[in-house]
Amino acid sequence: MNRSRQPLGPSSRSQVPDFEVMNILGRVSQLRQAGHEVISLCAGEPGGGAPSGVNQAAAEVHGSGRALNYTPILGIPELREAIAGHYRRWYGLDVQAGQVAVTTGSSGAFVTGFLAAFNPGDRVAMARPGYPAYRNILQALGCQVVEIDAGPQVRFQPTPELLEEAERVHGPLAGLVIASPNNPTGTMVTREELGALAAWCAERGVRLVSDEIYHGITYADTAQVGDEPGDERGVCAWEFSREAVVISSFSKYWGMPGWRIGWMLMPDDLAAAVSGLTGSVSLCPPAAAQYAAVEAFSEQSYAECDAQVAEFARTRELVLARAQELGWMDAAPADGAFYFYARPGERMLERYGSSAVYCAALLEQAHVALTPGGDFDSRGGDRYVRLSFAAGYDAVAQALDRIMEFQRG
Amino acid sequence: MNRSRQPLGPSSRSQVPDFEVMNILGRVSQLRQAGHEVISLCAGEPGGGAPSGVNQAAAEVHGSGRALNYTPILGIPELREAIAGHYRRWYGLDVQAGQVAVTTGSSGAFVTGFLAAFNPGDRVAMARPGYPAYRNILQALGCQVVEIDAGPQVRFQPTPELLEEAERVHGPLAGLVIASPNNPTGTMVTREELGALAAWCAERGVRLVSDEIYHGITYADTAQVGDEPGDERGVCAWEFSREAVVISSFSKYWGMPGWRIGWMLMPDDLAAAVSGLTGSVSLCPPAAAQYAAVEAFSEQSYAECDAQVAEFARTRELVLARAQELGWMDAAPADGAFYFYARPGERMLERYGSSAVYCAALLEQAHVALTPGGDFDSRGGDRYVRLSFAAGYDAVAQALDRIMEFQRG
Repeated sequence: MNRSRQPLGPSSRSQVPDFEVMNILGRVSQLRQAGHEVISLCAGEPGGGAPSGVNQAAAEVHGSGRALNYTPILGIPELREAIAGHYRRWYGLDVQAGQVAVTTGSSGAFVTGFLAAFNPGDRVAMARPGYPAYRNILQALGCQVVEIDAGPQVRFQPTPELLEEAERVHGPLAGLVIASPNNPTGTMVTREELGALAAWCAERGVRLVSDEIYHGITYADTAQVGDEPGDERGVCAWEFSREAVVISSFSKYWGMPGWRIGWMLMPDDLAAAVSGLTGSVSLCPPAAAQYAAVEAFSEQSYAECDAQVAEFARTRELVLARAQELGWMDAAPADGAFYFYARPGERMLERYGSSAVYCAALLEQAHVALTPGGDFDSRGGDRYVRLSFAAGYDAVAQALDRIMEFQRG
Repeated sequence: MNRSRQPLGPSSRSQVPDFEVMNILGRVSQLRQAGHEVISLCAGEPGGGAPSGVNQAAAEVHGSGRALNYTPILGIPELREAIAGHYRRWYGLDVQAGQVAVTTGSSGAFVTGFLAAFNPGDRVAMARPGYPAYRNILQALGCQVVEIDAGPQVRFQPTPELLEEAERVHGPLAGLVIASPNNPTGTMVTREELGALAAWCAERGVRLVSDEIYHGITYADTAQVGDEPGDERGVCAWEFSREAVVISSFSKYWGMPGWRIGWMLMPDDLAAAVSGLTGSVSLCPPAAAQYAAVEAFSEQSYAECDAQVAEFARTRELVLARAQELGWMDAAPADGAFYFYARPGERMLERYGSSAVYCAALLEQAHVALTPGGDFDSRGGDRYVRLSFAAGYDAVAQALDRIMEFQRG
């Protein structure tokens, strides 16, 4: 057979939107290489880094020169056990080590979790604004993303009513992805709201995927944190439904984003699929990070992380206090996480046309990296920005000064 | 709307075969936890570990306690530059840092590379026997895998004639995945053979994906290593076609499988898609591994890795010398990599029925882990086993003694 040349080029499924934060981080890196002192508030990167015991364990693993081989697919038994213990400590939940999959960041959990749970064409709902990688991964995997406009009136979280409406418009859902605290708004659902969403999913056979990566980073001044003792860390979806996929990570509360290590609580019916897929898709999570992460659950590590959360709270107060002075408006209530999602104000939007142009100018001229809201909300996001205050009080204070001066300029 | 409950359960696309090696590693871990001294020759895990400079750099990064944040999507500039330099050093090829994507192991490169290059339904060919994760990832992503029976008469590698035949039977191909040295057989294609495959692909617009993870691990006693000066490391597909996706890793020559860091050379037409997908699918490769891997390209690191390859060669001689004594037959010619792929002999296959049962008994009774050939070849593999001799001379010598005794028993 002699056939004519087919056109090459990228696949159509690869044409998903960029996760702009990651492109901005690339520009931050370039500016820094060129000698500029950039303050990066674009990504959710805790300034304090990992707990000291975790760093020390990793240094020891590498310093020993031992060969770092593949680990079991779903992680080393000690770490799976330690994560299960964390659910007893924080939530009073009985989780078995065998139900825990250690993953290559929460990202790895989303890829294998979505592949395991959803087929091409399946409709999966998520709130808009929301974390764009959910949408981009689902799209690349052939799922139909149903974005639910969840504005301030529902505190940026989906409700059973909005889900009913979405099913009327789009047809039956196969899945729902929620996040509490949410990214980019920081809002949380109460125990009752989470229970209602879980019940709605359970009644219909809709797979609930609960992104709990920001658990533990919450602020006591809001009534939304939770109603029962212990709720202040966030409420775990497994309290209501063991059919839910629960996803979390060491990236936020433990300050380890670059380590690429997270985990998933696997519903029984998906465990074999997750294991089988992971064994081919990523083989195993990074080994040294796993050995070190066992130390994340020591008393001292919890204490260090809680001190870091106290620092986030202090920085959050600073941002809230200066928001008016900045002329920023319509800020979402940051119940948890470390994001301030707001509109930079009419004057700025008039001058720059959109938050994307505003952010680009701010980065190039004042060397402060924020994220334009378009990343999280393709409809209204071009008038919003997200500021991560995880980098630390001093860095954020200095950035706010620079933003003030930039806006005056 | 009130609709009845849909059935939950795993997606149909998640029902790919397991990569059995990874399950066997899990069993090895269990046996070791129970106090057994297992010799693991099932996975491609170099016993010597990373170069000392890499270990030291990683220990310093972690010891400093610095926060490890996300890196640029495609890796830190210094590492992309260093990898580009490696192509000048080994192959005399001019590769730009911007064409290099650092990835989360070669696994990460396969996921984003396949997603970027192929749509659901696309036919992608690979040799049988071959690395099962190619097939499993492609299947999970909805591609149609065309397995090409490539036996000893073609040294376990595809040829243009076999590809023509495959197109006659299955229809036009969108892609071809090749590996030289191959896993599990270790065979290599010559410069001429690789050139012919690349030309065949280029003429038809078939995307060539060249897995070059075993480059640098080759043995001088075979004429197949290469015909020109420098070919002894393996021949890079970019010598023939910059439309090819070239995938490699620090896992084998540099002895860093558990670090989960590899790379891809991106054709220009796929670079934006790979970057966009990676920014959502994995965010970035592990940060500390990237900082440390820059040290993999020092003179001392190359010297240490070459010494490790000399150790592989010595161990390979041992295995070849004892193969007859073991009664193993039909061994594939291991031009490179560190695998011995052979049949355990009629007596063993009669006693155990299949290589899978033989391997399971060997692991449980003699605590030696091999991989049954069914992982690599769903047709004839149940009569073959793969032994990785990467663990080191002493470990392999001891394992061979145990296997001898087990076979006598």
